Amino acid sequence: MSTSSQSYPMNGGDDQHSYIHNSSYQKAGIDGVQEKARQYILENLDLLNMNPNLSTFTIADFGCSIGPNTFHAVQNIIDIVKLKHLKESQEDSRVAPLEFQVYFNDLPNNDFNTLFRTQPPSSKQEYFSVGVPGSFYGRVLPRNSIHIGNTSFTTHWLSKVPEEICDKKSPSWNKNYIHCNNLIEEVTEAYKVQFEKDMGVFLKARAEELVPGGLMITLGQCLPDGVAMYETWSGIVKDTIGDCLQDMATLGVTTEEKIEMFNLPVYFPQVSELKGAIEQNKRFTIEMMEIVSHPLEAVQLSNNFITSMYRAILSTVIERHFGGSVVDELFRQFAKKLSEHPIDFEKCKKQMVYHIVLKRK
Amino acid sequence: MSTSSQSYPMNGGDDQHSYIHNSSYQKAGIDGVQEKARQYILENLDLLNMNPNLSTFTIADFGCSIGPNTFHAVQNIIDIVKLKHLKESQEDSRVAPLEFQVYFNDLPNNDFNTLFRTQPPSSKQEYFSVGVPGSFYGRVLPRNSIHIGNTSFTTHWLSKVPEEICDKKSPSWNKNYIHCNNLIEEVTEAYKVQFEKDMGVFLKARAEELVPGGLMITLGQCLPDGVAMYETWSGIVKDTIGDCLQDMATLGVTTEEKIEMFNLPVYFPQVSELKGAIEQNKRFTIEMMEIVSHPLEAVQLSNNFITSMYRAILSTVIERHFGGSVVDELFRQFAKKLSEHPIDFEKCKKQMVYHIVLKRK
Repeated sequence: MSTSSQSYPMNGGDDQHSYIHNSSYQKAGIDGVQEKARQYILENLDLLNMNPNLSTFTIADFGCSIGPNTFHAVQNIIDIVKLKHLKESQEDSRVAPLEFQVYFNDLPNNDFNTLFRTQPPSSKQEYFSVGVPGSFYGRVLPRNSIHIGNTSFTTHWLSKVPEEICDKKSPSWNKNYIHCNNLIEEVTEAYKVQFEKDMGVFLKARAEELVPGGLMITLGQCLPDGVAMYETWSGIVKDTIGDCLQDMATLGVTTEEKIEMFNLPVYFPQVSELKGAIEQNKRFTIEMMEIVSHPLEAVQLSNNFITSMYRAILSTVIERHFGGSVVDELFRQFAKKLSEHPIDFEKCKKQMVYHIVLKRK
Repeated sequence: MSTSSQSYPMNGGDDQHSYIHNSSYQKAGIDGVQEKARQYILENLDLLNMNPNLSTFTIADFGCSIGPNTFHAVQNIIDIVKLKHLKESQEDSRVAPLEFQVYFNDLPNNDFNTLFRTQPPSSKQEYFSVGVPGSFYGRVLPRNSIHIGNTSFTTHWLSKVPEEICDKKSPSWNKNYIHCNNLIEEVTEAYKVQFEKDMGVFLKARAEELVPGGLMITLGQCLPDGVAMYETWSGIVKDTIGDCLQDMATLGVTTEEKIEMFNLPVYFPQVSELKGAIEQNKRFTIEMMEIVSHPLEAVQLSNNFITSMYRAILSTVIERHFGGSVVDELFRQFAKKLSEHPIDFEKCKKQMVYHIVLKRK
């Protein structure tokens, strides 16, 4: 895998393998933690009374993919802001009627056509929607143009795989593992450094794009301190996908060399690492930081569910490196391995979901 | 063809039949008239000194299609505004540095993926670009959010075919013609009414979206007073495409009934009709109205050029009505007919290009 900046959107379109039909795990994460943020916004969003002439309220979802979760997240924010606005306009007659504009951001090769085509009809009455192509590891919107930013399950996708990971001569070489499973300390360290750097870049860009007083809502997945990725069910899934690739190399469908050059640009930080990365930024105050178990953590997911979910997430990045022909066979083998050796969710270490609300100083 | 609201973007992608590779006629129209508008903006755009704290300058291209013409038009506007801004910031130190945001608007089924993928690399440094899915015959952006709007060769696409056109019992029935060629007076009248209504809706929506003092630049094609569509080369082209469809009905590839139900939602107004429709709007002042010959009007276009151009423009609307299977055969037959009976451009009546700059009151 090239170590320059990478771009792997979720699987587009709306067929059986698309992200659209395989993102309910992510949705459960969003549903589970949103109530607290609702409450926070209702009590603390002072943008409206700060500016009684405000006529357009702008919301951006960074790394929106193709729906439907992004529509769900955005609608939630709009509902709260409307409620807040209604209360304030009853108290203060100067408050102007409000229009909403929603910026849907993702990589330029995200399937925006599907995003636009599958928008819920109600959204057309409620807000003006626009698509913003560009990596959120950099500026994608003008200065001071956004009131509330949101990002859900995105920042574990790094801007790139750390360079030394695929370098056989480096102590950070990840051998034939395909992700940071925390088995090699130097690999973990290299990924961690990249994660901290990327999170810094992400927050710096958002600080410029948000208006002072604006809120940045960040949802994602992390590990409890001391838990390694290989001990979690999703770590086991990726290690199993790696094993399947090895089998396919043995059969000549791909090569050992290709696998050695392949790593997922993905890193799930431990709680204290995440906190450190957020606290390093000096342009936001931390208004809320909830770190809880994923509501589906205790549930034994079916093998079909797991296979479909990971196919939607990983097929783009796998296809880019190994070619389109391997995807079907890889997930066929993966499903087979899963049925032979089902994951015992009871025995797996639990992952966490974090929900952070930042306020732009 | 259904008479409800219709949506036919230019042909997407970037293959040989795409609008991307077949829009140079439209580009020539843009190049030919832009110098006057440049001059006007340089002399009259007072948005910048009206608001010395302005930090984001917003431009929208309505009906942008998939490029490259939209990038060209937008870049031209940015170049002028930058020049103007530079002059003013030399004279007035309060003037803030400026960022640009460009809204690319077209129908939700426009190929935004291709638009985003084919953006010139330079644009990424010069402006933040966003896609806006939605019909410009209605609001697509918040109130007072745009400084300069642009639309090039778009408003001859009506929101729909007038209902009576495909009604056999109506005096406005268009028989087996497929467009308004001005041979039947009642047909012309029905199209004209729809055009005036649509232009009214278009300008009303833009008046709400533009800031006071904002400019709306409108480029398009019209007919000199007294000239009928069937006398122009592009009228002849569409009549010939109609003839080819008739031939295909005879061969059983399509049916007479299907052709009778098919009409292009396209109307080119005569100069005085256009002026009337623009003047009816009371929320803009007319700052400039240039109506000139198309720079390629006198040129004998090659048969290949004509075939490729009209295939890029019409394949979506034809495919939707007749099914995908007819497109190849139709344009094969069209190319054959053209080679047997080439259009004599010398003998055709000339069309005009209009270039209007409106200022929001």
